[in-house]
Formats: sequence, structure tokens, C-alpha cells
Amino acid sequence: MNGGDGTFSYNKNSYFQRAATNVARATIDEVIAETLDVKRFSSALTIFRITDLGCSVGPNTFLAVQNIIEGVRHKYKLQGLSSQLPDFEVLFNDSASNDFNTLFASLPSDRLYYAAGVPGSFHGRLFPKASLHFAHSSYALHWLSKVPKELVDPNSAAFNKGRVHYTSAPREVSDAYTSQFAKDMATFMKARGEEIVSGGMMVMVMPGIANGIPYSRVPSGVMFDLLGFSLMDMAKEGIISEAQVDSFNLPVYAPSPDEMTALVESNGCFSIERMDLAAPGSKIDESVGGHACMLHLRAGMEGIISKHFGSEIIDDLFDRFLGKTKEFSDRLNSAFLQGSQLVVILKRK
Amino acid sequence: MNGGDGTFSYNKNSYFQRAATNVARATIDEVIAETLDVKRFSSALTIFRITDLGCSVGPNTFLAVQNIIEGVRHKYKLQGLSSQLPDFEVLFNDSASNDFNTLFASLPSDRLYYAAGVPGSFHGRLFPKASLHFAHSSYALHWLSKVPKELVDPNSAAFNKGRVHYTSAPREVSDAYTSQFAKDMATFMKARGEEIVSGGMMVMVMPGIANGIPYSRVPSGVMFDLLGFSLMDMAKEGIISEAQVDSFNLPVYAPSPDEMTALVESNGCFSIERMDLAAPGSKIDESVGGHACMLHLRAGMEGIISKHFGSEIIDDLFDRFLGKTKEFSDRLNSAFLQGSQLVVILKRK
Repeated sequence: MNGGDGTFSYNKNSYFQRAATNVARATIDEVIAETLDVKRFSSALTIFRITDLGCSVGPNTFLAVQNIIEGVRHKYKLQGLSSQLPDFEVLFNDSASNDFNTLFASLPSDRLYYAAGVPGSFHGRLFPKASLHFAHSSYALHWLSKVPKELVDPNSAAFNKGRVHYTSAPREVSDAYTSQFAKDMATFMKARGEEIVSGGMMVMVMPGIANGIPYSRVPSGVMFDLLGFSLMDMAKEGIISEAQVDSFNLPVYAPSPDEMTALVESNGCFSIERMDLAAPGSKIDESVGGHACMLHLRAGMEGIISKHFGSEIIDDLFDRFLGKTKEFSDRLNSAFLQGSQLVVILKRK
Repeated sequence: MNGGDGTFSYNKNSYFQRAATNVARATIDEVIAETLDVKRFSSALTIFRITDLGCSVGPNTFLAVQNIIEGVRHKYKLQGLSSQLPDFEVLFNDSASNDFNTLFASLPSDRLYYAAGVPGSFHGRLFPKASLHFAHSSYALHWLSKVPKELVDPNSAAFNKGRVHYTSAPREVSDAYTSQFAKDMATFMKARGEEIVSGGMMVMVMPGIANGIPYSRVPSGVMFDLLGFSLMDMAKEGIISEAQVDSFNLPVYAPSPDEMTALVESNGCFSIERMDLAAPGSKIDESVGGHACMLHLRAGMEGIISKHFGSEIIDDLFDRFLGKTKEFSDRLNSAFLQGSQLVVILKRK
């Protein structure tokens, strides 16, 4: 993610994630009211601990946790336990390289919770055992912990030549991504299973895809194809080499509901309370169009692209990308009608 | 504090604080072994929460919390409760402007605790009620929350003309500092009284001074006098104005044991388990001398001095200061023999 709050920062360019938060919010409220049983926690509970995993620098994380706290307070009221309302402690998690200084500087001054930052990978343990009551993660779990190495091995059937993602790629390529995502979710859910108390909840919001639909038909799939086309154009003009494109793969993945169900069941610690696939596109201002897609992609991906290709290609690359969004506007627009946001709500058994 | 890890950073220039940690460490070990009663905590205690208040960017904070954890683990063993050892969670606190990114990047990878950063002023509430078992603060509480305004009022008897601190100043000046420190300690101890569980402990390490001794006889007092002399020399040469010196006051204070005792008793939540005044100077490498004093002062004070006088005077100022440490080396050396580090260990009633 681009840190700080400049023109291309994540902070200023997280429309899609904000739209996602809005869509997910109503679902989260509903599920808290229906299924979170605060009576199950000890009456001696004095601290209700919430984490946002992969919080980035805000402001979406603040909206998300505020919504959860309002939902939980409301549930205490519904269950006639307002007098036992605990203090809320929110643990904002992201990798140690996240810009926590920016996050801390922008914490809402009127917040009704105690705030802390927790640096580290959510693919491992981050919190003491049975110390969390609510875990939330929005647009973070789709980042793979690493690029499967067969994708960059010219001798492998999964060698991903001329592309930067599994969108529009052969089966072997998408299988390598699928397998890495399954490993990552297994380590993630194992750690959370240990950290979340019985009766506690976990919300996961991420790009998703309907069962049996190709990735080339969802918005991020189209964007990744256009990014690949732009890079290959630059390779043909000799600005970068084809080998550089072949060795670059975006480490992001979008699972289907069936796939997530199988992963949750394989972990065994959680029951599935809700699994929704929605189209956040309908909430996005149409007039923003390709430019918003460009800013969105740049805010999220500039870091890893610069690291691989050098920062000098960035402005040129995203200009070309913007051109592609016009050329392929029909494909992009129809993708935004597809359900592509997965909301999964689990309860710790 | 100077952030990052450059030549003049706090990170690379915290010898004195490190020496302080070493001296305090043995005392803390002793008091934990003697007076922390882990049996008093519920046998259902699964998380032992420790905070370091005013942690800065490390590495001293890591040494301090590791020492506390080893002490507490040892006490569990002494009390025959090794099988009930809880998980340790350490909450690193400093103001929101602290460089938490540097802190998080340098967390020890082999740490035996879960780590979190908590941004905010320790003069207010930072944690849920009764959620801490051990609070530690080293070389942070001597920073006043603000400069008393009468110090910069030419019509006040406490107007601090030609000096930057209460060292060698009239009684009215030191009274203004004393009163501000008392207010700060009151808000600090009120908040900690609410946050620390009954039986929990609090360690405060800070510059201190023997009952009835003038501040001009302790190391930091000498340094602040020499800093004032250097600034006044620059004012005489017209590099800065005298009015700028008159309106600048270092917001730091060192209490005596009698003073601290009265403040703790006035709060009423804590019993005093230990109150030691030691001379950390004996632990400092003599060969480092004036240069170490200069680096120490620059790392701690460059920020507020630059803010007031402009960063362009800094190199010149600290060159002059270094010259003064040679000129006044006898006064400086004899000050290092004075007890000037106060270690206060409290237990929550």
C-alpha cells in the first residue's frame, strides 16, 4: 500500500474498500444482532477486544470498528445487559512495514474505545490465547503470503508467461494460486481459532467470485488483464523486458463461496453464520470510471510494481492503463455488475 | 526525541537511559521477587499485561520489558505456580508523534510476548479499567506536559530571563516547575490507579535529586546551565535574540524522594514498595565524557530547540555546548557522583 496521504496514497484512494465497508456494514449489523450472544461471555467480562486484521492506515478501518462497536453495544441493550457494558479495546493489525505513524495520527479523537497497534503477519499468532471477542478483516486476506514459485519457473507447466496474474491464464497457473491461498487461509484460521474466545465472531471481507465463473469477468480480473496488456506493450517497445513481465505476478486471489466453505470446514473451529457475494460496483459513482480504477490500482499495487520494475516506469504504466480502461470500457462496466465482494461471517465454536 | 536511527537519533544516543535501565534492573528484580504476589491474581488469569509508558523507539524499552517478564516468570516459579504461567502482552506507549514505525521494525524477533503499540498521552487514560498488571516508565515522567505560562510572562516574578530551566534560577521559577510537575503526576497516577489491577505494580525511573540539594549539582542541571550559557553567548553575538532565550524553557523536572512520597500519598491508590536514589554516573564510561553529554542532550532536546530557534542554529549550538563541557569539566564530573536517578516502585492497593 502507498503510505502517507499524498495524491496516490492508499489513504486518499480507497474508494473501493470504502464502498466495500458500506456494503458489508449492514450485513455485519444484522449478523451481530441475530447471532452474537453476549450472555455467553462471562458476566465478569470487563474488556471486549476487537481486532482489524490488515487495517492499513485508515480511514476505512475506523469506520469498520466503529460500526462493530455500535452493533455490539446495541446487542448488549437487546439482551438487557446495558449495565454490564464492557470497555472496548481495538487492536489495529497490519504488517510491521505498515505506516502505523499515519494510522495513529489519524485515530478519531472522539473514539469510544482504547486503541492499540499490533504489527506482524496475520498468518501467525498475534494475540494471547482466547483474548479476542471479534476479529474483522477487509480487503487484506486476498493478498497471498508469497508468489508460488512454479509461476516463475520456465520449466513448470504453471510458468505464467506474458501475464501478471491468473486471470485469463491456463489451469496450472490458477491451481498454483488456489493452492497458495488454501495454505494461507489454513495458517490464518488456525491462529484465529486459538485467539478468539468461544462465541466470538470473525468477519472476512474480500474480493470473491461466484462458483464456476472465470476471474476475467470480475472487476479486478479485468484490471489485472489491462495491467498485463500495458506492461506487455511496454515490453514490445523495449522500455522493459518480456522476462521482467514473465517473472512478475500479483500475489492476490479471490475465492468462491464453495471454496471458502470448504476451507472453513477443514479448519473446524468455526461455524459459518453468513456467506454473501455482493456487487459493490452498484455503489460506485459511474462518473469516476476508469480514472478511479487507475487510482485504486496504483494506490494498492505501486509498491510491488516499483520494486520489480523500478519506479521510473510507474507514471507511463498507469497512463497506458488509463488508456486501456477506455478501450475496454464495456468489459470493465459489465464486470462491475458481477458479484465480486465476498462477506464471510464466522462464529468460534 | 530524534526519530529514525541516524547519527543524532535517540535510538543511537541513549547511553544514559541504557545505563539507567541497567541500574534500575537489579532493583526491579529484587522488588518483584519480594513483593509481587502472583497468587493475588485470579488463577483464571490467562494474560499478564505490561505497559512501558513513554517507550520511545527502543532498544531500552525492549531490555526493560524483557527484564520484567523474566522477573515475573521467576516469581511464578518461586510461588510454585509455573504451570499457571499466563501469556504476556506488552503495550508500548508513547505520544502519537513517536516514531512507532521504527519501534515496530526493531521489535526483537525472539520475544516471548505479544506486542502492541498504544499512542497517546500518559497524562490521561490509555487502557481499559483494571487491565494492567505491571506499568513501567523510564525517563519519560520528567517531561512536563507543558511549560508553566508564568515563566514567559515578563510581568511575573517567575519570568525566567536569560535561562532555559529552573537550574540556578530564583525560587519563583522552580516553584512554577514544581507545581506543574505535581499536576502532571496527579493526572498520571489517577489514570494508572484506574488501569492497574489490585496487587499490580508500577515502576517509575526518572532523574531525581536528593532532598534539599540544588539542581545545579546534578548532571542534567549542569548540562542545562551549559546549554543556557551557550544560547546566551549566541544571543550576545546576535545569532539569536535574548528575547528568544527568555521565552524558551526546557519542560523537564527532577523531583526529590520527599516530594514523590507526598505525591504518591496524595493520590492514595498505591503503596510505596521502594524509593531509591542512585548515581548512574558510576556506570558511565569516563572516556566518553563531554561528547557523550552532547550527544545525549542533542538526541533528547534537538526537536524542541529546533522548533523554537530554527534548525540552522543546532550544529553551532552543540559545538559551543561541547566547548562548555570542557570548560566546566570539574563541575560536570562532580555532578556525576551525585545520586540523580530516582527509582520508585509502587503497588496498587
